[in-house]
Amino acid sequence: MDDVPFHPAHWLNTDHPLALGDFHGWVLAVEVFQMLFPGCVLNGLPQAQRLEQTFDAKDLAVIGLHSVFEHHAGNSRESLAAFLHEWRIQFPVAIDTQDDGPMPQTMGAWGLQGTPSLVLFDRGGRMRAHHFGQVADMALGAQVMGLIGEEEER
Amino acid sequence: MDDVPFHPAHWLNTDHPLALGDFHGWVLAVEVFQMLFPGCVLNGLPQAQRLEQTFDAKDLAVIGLHSVFEHHAGNSRESLAAFLHEWRIQFPVAIDTQDDGPMPQTMGAWGLQGTPSLVLFDRGGRMRAHHFGQVADMALGAQVMGLIGEEEER
Amino acid sequence: MDDVPFHPAHWLNTDHPLALGDFHGWVLAVEVFQMLFPGCVLNGLPQAQRLEQTFDAKDLAVIGLHSVFEHHAGNSRESLAAFLHEWRIQFPVAIDTQDDGPMPQTMGAWGLQGTPSLVLFDRGGRMRAHHFGQVADMALGAQVMGLIGEEEER
Amino acid sequence: MDDVPFHPAHWLNTDHPLALGDFHGWVLAVEVFQMLFPGCVLNGLPQAQRLEQTFDAKDLAVIGLHSVFEHHAGNSRESLAAFLHEWRIQFPVAIDTQDDGPMPQTMGAWGLQGTPSLVLFDRGGRMRAHHFGQVADMALGAQVMGLIGEEEER
Repeated sequence: MDDVPFHPAHWLNTDHPLALGDFHGWVLAVEVFQMLFPGCVLNGLPQAQRLEQTFDAKDLAVIGLHSVFEHHAGNSRESLAAFLHEWRIQFPVAIDTQDDGPMPQTMGAWGLQGTPSLVLFDRGGRMRAHHFGQVADMALGAQVMGLIGEEEER
Repeated sequence: MDDVPFHPAHWLNTDHPLALGDFHGWVLAVEVFQMLFPGCVLNGLPQAQRLEQTFDAKDLAVIGLHSVFEHHAGNSRESLAAFLHEWRIQFPVAIDTQDDGPMPQTMGAWGLQGTPSLVLFDRGGRMRAHHFGQVADMALGAQVMGLIGEEEER
Repeated sequence: MDDVPFHPAHWLNTDHPLALGDFHGWVLAVEVFQMLFPGCVLNGLPQAQRLEQTFDAKDLAVIGLHSVFEHHAGNSRESLAAFLHEWRIQFPVAIDTQDDGPMPQTMGAWGLQGTPSLVLFDRGGRMRAHHFGQVADMALGAQVMGLIGEEEER
Repeated sequence: MDDVPFHPAHWLNTDHPLALGDFHGWVLAVEVFQMLFPGCVLNGLPQAQRLEQTFDAKDLAVIGLHSVFEHHAGNSRESLAAFLHEWRIQFPVAIDTQDDGPMPQTMGAWGLQGTPSLVLFDRGGRMRAHHFGQVADMALGAQVMGLIGEEEER
């Protein structure tokens, strides 16, 4: 887990910064999104909210990662805060670090194709799956349950 | 499993009658429905089709049980056969035995409240859950995966 | 209007047979359907119910025409009666006359391609439109309103 | 029409400012929205897009009015421009003028309760309807068609 790159610049919906290591022992779902992309708003984020509501918080943790690669001026921290409030998104959301590259740092390091992407880590912190675009609720529920049922290797 | 009552009068979508014991070693989902009830047509049966498509046939078996307790004259075997054809339902469907009681025999013996009901059996043939009305795809996918992951007790 | 062929063999949801001439002065929407076809159940019939609920009964009349060209044995009058009851379809429904041809008589005479078809008649009894398959609610609402607004030619 | 107050501060999706008088002779639909409100994104704006696609541009004009009364910092002009681009909203959008009052000027002057609100003007420029929240497509299609069919009083 310590090996997985993770570069949040800021956090919303949490009063202190989080590290991936904080989720050791949990299955972790990271919803990588852009607040102005229809596919994220209509599909990705509501599904992440359903994950949070369906599974027990002692088994699964859900966080968001706002990884903007277009329209930077329209994606201010204030815009994102208002968006999360209005859409009732209550899980912690990291803002990915933007430098000179075409993609934000974490998104680039994870090799993602675009947004929305749902990335799953097992209890031991290993990245086990990433879904770009839509994945059906039933298949996702089964996959998360499979990870929850695994014994953690130490 | 031999103890679970099961009283099919006829079968469709299979060339030979099936017994619950035939599913020993599989998780089994039984969709209990009436072809003329909107909740079965709109929710229960499409969800059973998604179960069949989502999980591997070596782990999960899906069958239907047509348990009619109203409008018997309108639920002939010919009507049901045409209905299954038009709605592209391809899993085996048992027609529950009707005697003098208010409910068909299997439905009554299983203590179901109505249709649609989704009944889940584990690999050892024990009835483990029944959902009357709607259950969300994500929660159902997780529950079925949990049963698939269990070691079969012998 | 007297020239438009119409051959109902039976009626449901009305205590007396109806003729097209009975709707003189109204805009008339006829939903041509088969109770076992998914497109009729999911789209055509619910839209006909919305027509009935949206427009004033003094402007628009809605009836159904059950025109079966497949699975005749599975489409008995008892099945249709039960279907209408369970799906809460309360407008009058005619059962189209079947003879030796491939299509029921009215459906054939009207030159329809299949089911669901929505056929619109103006206040003077002239057939003005037929939609095979899906038509969007907004466009249909506009079209019906256009017919309602016409002065009846006498 | 000249009497109807209208106070746009800026415009997007048009290369010159528009006045209500420019729509004299057309039925005009104004979608009053906030880009961060779920009801506007999920219902109001897609319905306005359907209006634009369903009716002939020589009969109906559609514009948006961005009337923000919360989260001003998160609703910058850059955010709105990016939002319109990503959601493929191509009709002209006015940004309502904000002064010291609780509501933007046009929204306040029109007596609207909130967003989304759809406001309809007839060909003569009179405000004829406003729908706060959801209105069904079929009823809206009929209402717009009724206005289109009216003779313009001069």
